[in-house]
Amino acid sequence: METFKAHLDKFITINDEEFASVLSFFKVVEVKKKHILMNDGEICHSMYFVVKGCLRKFFVNEKGVERTTEFAIENWWMTDTFAYERQIKSNFCIQSVEKSVILEINLQTQEELLKKHPVMERYFRMIYQRAYAASERRIRYLYELSREELYVHFSTLYPWFIQRIPQYLIASFLGFTPEYLSEIRAKLRS
Amino acid sequence: METFKAHLDKFITINDEEFASVLSFFKVVEVKKKHILMNDGEICHSMYFVVKGCLRKFFVNEKGVERTTEFAIENWWMTDTFAYERQIKSNFCIQSVEKSVILEINLQTQEELLKKHPVMERYFRMIYQRAYAASERRIRYLYELSREELYVHFSTLYPWFIQRIPQYLIASFLGFTPEYLSEIRAKLRS
Repeated sequence: METFKAHLDKFITINDEEFASVLSFFKVVEVKKKHILMNDGEICHSMYFVVKGCLRKFFVNEKGVERTTEFAIENWWMTDTFAYERQIKSNFCIQSVEKSVILEINLQTQEELLKKHPVMERYFRMIYQRAYAASERRIRYLYELSREELYVHFSTLYPWFIQRIPQYLIASFLGFTPEYLSEIRAKLRS
Repeated sequence: METFKAHLDKFITINDEEFASVLSFFKVVEVKKKHILMNDGEICHSMYFVVKGCLRKFFVNEKGVERTTEFAIENWWMTDTFAYERQIKSNFCIQSVEKSVILEINLQTQEELLKKHPVMERYFRMIYQRAYAASERRIRYLYELSREELYVHFSTLYPWFIQRIPQYLIASFLGFTPEYLSEIRAKLRS
């Protein structure tokens, strides 16, 4: 769990003893590829922190097509924030894209953690601030860029995105058919 | 400033004396309709809390058309979070839609506020958590709904949106021409 400590160190000051206590509030979960951590229609009990691997969040649209709205790799959090805060049913699914190691925490345990270690309020404030900043920019891209431009944009900004994420999931994220994505890639290579 | 106190009370416990101290970190700004609080190309120095009135955030696209990405009414915050955290130039503008009363705070003063009143870390954590939750859902709607469905969705979820926001700004938010918005409204009324 050294990577989690190194990650926290970027935001807050915390000694080894405090870190051990913080860590004790989390459950370490190891999952295979394509494991469903949360299914739609289930109460969203937990937040997930990716120690190693990759998760995605998706929904199934009216036509039965999966649409991926978010990926999380190492040091990113994932949950359905709206459903988690209210402890209500989610209409998203969360699934592993790769074999992954996850830290899981539920709302009640997170409240106990925040009570015992108020410095974690600052940590989570900064995490949500960054996540919100990223989504503000993403909404602008959704307004401004064509789907082809979005692909180029994500490829440039996040090289891991193209290297790690299977092509059919990139298509599901950008709203392409896998065939159309192949065409774009061929066009960009030429 | 009773509304700001009532707003804080929803998230944290704070007595009158503490509240007076918290408030002293903010600058009260009164602006007329259409006042530019932040221009694109300027460093994003401040966060704005709407006590009374309405703000919008927009950018000007390649064709010179204004695209509004966000509105904030009473008890909402607005800034370019990415540029604010990094104190860099923003490529958004923030403008009042109505005559407004605003609480303004800059990054350095906010850090001093958080140091003196750590309970405000919790407040801002919850504010960003809610803002992020709202944007997660909004991204899903941008994936899932046609622009006509988005209009119906926003009208239903936020009646104030249709009542308070001028029609040309609703069009700029939804990516319609004002003429197309009139057509949709006529169609929905019939």
